[in-house]
Amino acid sequence: MPLKAIDDQHILGDIVGAVESIDDCGDGVFDVRIALSAATVGGDAGQFLNMAFGNTSLHDDVVLVDVDGQLPFPGPQHGIDGLRQRVGAYGRALTCSALKPQGLPAARLAALAERFARGGIDFIKDDHGLADQSYSPFAERVAAIAGAVGRTRYVPSLSGNLETMRRQVEISGACGIDTMLIAPMIAGWSTFQALVRDYPGVAFLAHPSMGGAARIAPELLIGKLFRLIGADAVIFPNHGGRFGYTPDVCRRLAEQARAPRDGIRSSIPVPAGGMTVDRVPEMLDFYGVDVMLLIGGNLLAAREQLTDRTANFTRAVAQHRYR
Amino acid sequence: MPLKAIDDQHILGDIVGAVESIDDCGDGVFDVRIALSAATVGGDAGQFLNMAFGNTSLHDDVVLVDVDGQLPFPGPQHGIDGLRQRVGAYGRALTCSALKPQGLPAARLAALAERFARGGIDFIKDDHGLADQSYSPFAERVAAIAGAVGRTRYVPSLSGNLETMRRQVEISGACGIDTMLIAPMIAGWSTFQALVRDYPGVAFLAHPSMGGAARIAPELLIGKLFRLIGADAVIFPNHGGRFGYTPDVCRRLAEQARAPRDGIRSSIPVPAGGMTVDRVPEMLDFYGVDVMLLIGGNLLAAREQLTDRTANFTRAVAQHRYR
Repeated sequence: MPLKAIDDQHILGDIVGAVESIDDCGDGVFDVRIALSAATVGGDAGQFLNMAFGNTSLHDDVVLVDVDGQLPFPGPQHGIDGLRQRVGAYGRALTCSALKPQGLPAARLAALAERFARGGIDFIKDDHGLADQSYSPFAERVAAIAGAVGRTRYVPSLSGNLETMRRQVEISGACGIDTMLIAPMIAGWSTFQALVRDYPGVAFLAHPSMGGAARIAPELLIGKLFRLIGADAVIFPNHGGRFGYTPDVCRRLAEQARAPRDGIRSSIPVPAGGMTVDRVPEMLDFYGVDVMLLIGGNLLAAREQLTDRTANFTRAVAQHRYR
Repeated sequence: MPLKAIDDQHILGDIVGAVESIDDCGDGVFDVRIALSAATVGGDAGQFLNMAFGNTSLHDDVVLVDVDGQLPFPGPQHGIDGLRQRVGAYGRALTCSALKPQGLPAARLAALAERFARGGIDFIKDDHGLADQSYSPFAERVAAIAGAVGRTRYVPSLSGNLETMRRQVEISGACGIDTMLIAPMIAGWSTFQALVRDYPGVAFLAHPSMGGAARIAPELLIGKLFRLIGADAVIFPNHGGRFGYTPDVCRRLAEQARAPRDGIRSSIPVPAGGMTVDRVPEMLDFYGVDVMLLIGGNLLAAREQLTDRTANFTRAVAQHRYR
């Protein structure tokens, strides 16, 4: 909007974005701080993203590094404490694995889940690729797995639009499930926000799919903003795995998820993406106690020893002595 | 998923992704073609994005360049022909402008829209930043503007979740509006898909906000995929304006939007982003007749001459002789 086409003093003073500072970081990179009016957002999370980085995301050479101020979001409804309560685990890291591959029918996924559960794992999340496919329809899958996992929490993956997701939350609730997986960048932030608001009893694990976080700083997108919209747990690619995040990015992301914020619960960081059981001690020393370790493929690759390797995993977490 | 943990021949043969080719493009860049099973997607647009580029978007050095095959989407319900019918414009480019700034109350936006309309413009879209803000609530704004534009089509911007957007489409419909603006990357593809399905009488302009198209090739994301999900018009940053797309990217994007595809209507390309009236002839020669020119700030900057400059714009389009 050309400024000279605005003749309203209120808009010029209170609504138009203001460049607060430009710092030269060298090498042609500048750190720019821009103030936006909260009135342009209201309370809608999608509109927040639209204002914060909507058109700017189309520039080749701009990264959204941080967002500050009074953001109109309540944060997690459960957070770290609520997730610990669900599985009665205190003073140690939480454990998680992933159900896959795609293509298995519900009964075989349930059999796999049952073996994870016997290994003592806290949470089993759907692979985020599991949706409502013909080979394992959502309702059938959730009922089968919910009945197979005992005290382990099964975390089904939400897909489709808000109405589809409502049905999925309700189908899951009827099976006693109180923890769900959602990918905010796929679902739309407003969709996620509506679910957090309307199902206060449900805890949400946020999946980073389509996070494209090379353009929005990962610690901001996944650590800070997913938490603010309502993620009780935030999954992200750990350093040294299948993705390229550095240890520093991972540390900052975990800090953003857990750092004390006035009136906002902490989210639990969930480093993942090619993690293995032998990395458990190192990861625990890196992240501390308030972390959920998510190991999928490495447990599944044990095949007939899946329950044993899962038990190794949960034991390594339970017995870890922090340096 | 470790392949060695899969013991089901059907999954190994029909579901697991297959690397079809790897071509060395030089400079450490490779063109890789991967086949994914359509069964992993079903018909959901969000799940399509999840499968096509979900986790892969988290890699620093991967760009999604193209997607081929039988995609389960119907394309636009109206397309170029339907948009032309709405405004009775044939054999010339369509014209569009944008209502802003944020912060104006409904009555003043309506007064601005009325002046655009008197200049003979075909479409007036909300600035994509206009949502349901306190200074111009959606219902009040839409009613005021719909009553002010005569034969010009006013295109309100959708925001919030699917249920909010349904209310907005219905409020707009009650005011005689049949064309809406949506940002698929903010709304979520499944949300957009549900609206296309449930409101077959409504034409949709797709806004690229949060397109972050440096990671998904712009011609694929905006030109091809937004069309396939159902955008009748796709807005994108034209070369030489406020964004960094090259002429080649823009040409390919417009080709993707308009190219004949079996049983799929064409979307109209809408180059925008800092365009000016004096670029009209050059843009028309570049894009041809099936284009909608969107000029916002440059018309608004004319202030008291807004109607006159709008008339210059619409006349330049009507009288253009293609080279």
